[in-house]
Amino acid sequence: MSAGTEFPFPFACKKQERGSACNMITVLAGGVGAAKFLEGLAAAMPPAEITVIANTGDDAEFHGLHVSPDMDTVLYTLAGVVDREQGWGLAGETFHCLAALERMGEETWFRLGDRDLATHLLRTRRLRQGATLSEAAEELRRAFGVRCRIIPMTDDPAGTRLRTDQGELSFQEYFVKLRQKPEVLEADFSAAAASKPAPGVLESITRADAVILAPSNPILSIGPILAVPGIREALRNTTATVAAISPIVGGRALKGPAARNLASLGYGATAAAVAELYRDFVKVFVLDEQDARQREIIERKGMRAMVAQTVMRSSEDRRKLAGSLLKELEGLR
Amino acid sequence: MSAGTEFPFPFACKKQERGSACNMITVLAGGVGAAKFLEGLAAAMPPAEITVIANTGDDAEFHGLHVSPDMDTVLYTLAGVVDREQGWGLAGETFHCLAALERMGEETWFRLGDRDLATHLLRTRRLRQGATLSEAAEELRRAFGVRCRIIPMTDDPAGTRLRTDQGELSFQEYFVKLRQKPEVLEADFSAAAASKPAPGVLESITRADAVILAPSNPILSIGPILAVPGIREALRNTTATVAAISPIVGGRALKGPAARNLASLGYGATAAAVAELYRDFVKVFVLDEQDARQREIIERKGMRAMVAQTVMRSSEDRRKLAGSLLKELEGLR
Repeated sequence: MSAGTEFPFPFACKKQERGSACNMITVLAGGVGAAKFLEGLAAAMPPAEITVIANTGDDAEFHGLHVSPDMDTVLYTLAGVVDREQGWGLAGETFHCLAALERMGEETWFRLGDRDLATHLLRTRRLRQGATLSEAAEELRRAFGVRCRIIPMTDDPAGTRLRTDQGELSFQEYFVKLRQKPEVLEADFSAAAASKPAPGVLESITRADAVILAPSNPILSIGPILAVPGIREALRNTTATVAAISPIVGGRALKGPAARNLASLGYGATAAAVAELYRDFVKVFVLDEQDARQREIIERKGMRAMVAQTVMRSSEDRRKLAGSLLKELEGLR
Repeated sequence: MSAGTEFPFPFACKKQERGSACNMITVLAGGVGAAKFLEGLAAAMPPAEITVIANTGDDAEFHGLHVSPDMDTVLYTLAGVVDREQGWGLAGETFHCLAALERMGEETWFRLGDRDLATHLLRTRRLRQGATLSEAAEELRRAFGVRCRIIPMTDDPAGTRLRTDQGELSFQEYFVKLRQKPEVLEADFSAAAASKPAPGVLESITRADAVILAPSNPILSIGPILAVPGIREALRNTTATVAAISPIVGGRALKGPAARNLASLGYGATAAAVAELYRDFVKVFVLDEQDARQREIIERKGMRAMVAQTVMRSSEDRRKLAGSLLKELEGLR
């Protein structure tokens, strides 16, 4: 198999050449939960063999700058510069520019730090110069010295709109400005559904040895990715083993509103409900030890259920979860 | 006289209605020297009756942001937030974003502070939204609570290019990056010469009671303004008394490369040489006490020479220079 000319990344090394069953791994990623898992994965295998497809349904413009919160959370975490306390943003961040914007009457509920601004300045400048979002992402990845590839799900605008009990909101209005308090009645991925997958997205799913859905919000983080035309089909058709890690543990989301989103949209707030959402393409479903009793329900969906400690409190937890999933995936090939 | 509909500012109060001989003053301004004088002027008369026409020949784009250094120096000084030590930039500034840009491989010789960035973000966003530079300037003026009107000389691109012994340079490459070390062999104002004056510029010269050329570099700060079509003609034809303050004292510029520019371009580095450059429209020329002996040369050019202490070390110096010039101008009407 030769690399297609339209595909920019050198997917040259194949499992046959390497002796390991899972060389090329592609991860569908939201923000904080995904970033934690990716940190573990990058410690458990050569990071250059990991491709991240990042959700851009939460991208937004603030003060004229294009901000890609999920992509940056992954970037900062993999670069080792994330604020580990909160899981996003840069460590040791300051907010002098934001304070100045506030004094000038700007809305500043989205907290852009001074160092973080540099990322958005570079990205926005490249976009204005005609670069695509993936080209800008690739430059940022290099600038931060991150070896995993990070591709946005699409280069097109794909902002998620939410119908809530407090009116229609953009994702960031819901998530940051209103602190996830409104009830989400409908998630509108029509922008994502009208977009094209970014270069490399479908190929990274098709050619991977395994694809992993990170423990991210299945509705608001993975949902937009699956709404991009071709991605769900690629997941169904790939020869890669597709795995997913439940972001729901003991009926609650480890972070963010995933449990409430699942409930208000009529799904159950359980690991099994998440598995059901991925039923048409996931072969291995990782659920937490606390939810071990759901193993049977999940296996009845035709998936292999893997019980693990999915709560990642330390770097060791992250590496361990990634390592055990890799081992499981290798065993299946 | 009714205000023209194309002229956005309410030039309603006329000297006849106010009892003072000089109500409406328009100042042609470069950066630090002009800002110091303007601070004094705004203390000596109602600031709302001052219009500043700012040089934008030194505007440049950094990291995708439109930066207007001279306009901002005037803005920050009049808002009382300037770094008084250096005469430009914001007091108590930090550079965290710039350091992050540098880590990402960006050129950072133009020192943008974190708080300063907020100004450029707002301006750039408004320009991207389709606003003119003067509309953005007006919003910034209000945001900073400055009562003097500040108008860019033009809303069009008007960057000064310099032919130097180290090649062709933009103004900021010469001024900041190479610290004014190259010899300027030719100043190219062709962009300014191809621009249109911003709304209000010609009217503010025509309708003013007096126009003052601030003590700014006559080549690189006032030169671009005079190159904008219609401005020099308006200065020649206005009924306002046109005055200029020499930026050259004792054969040297108080700040910046004005003396060297005058010399390398074949003019003398003297107050009288500056007066000669303005000969066709200036009626009152203010020279420093140190240069009192040049009074006669200047008066032979058909100007009224006013000797004053032009070196402005304190706020009191600034107010005194402005006050004595206002008194002189009032006496002439």
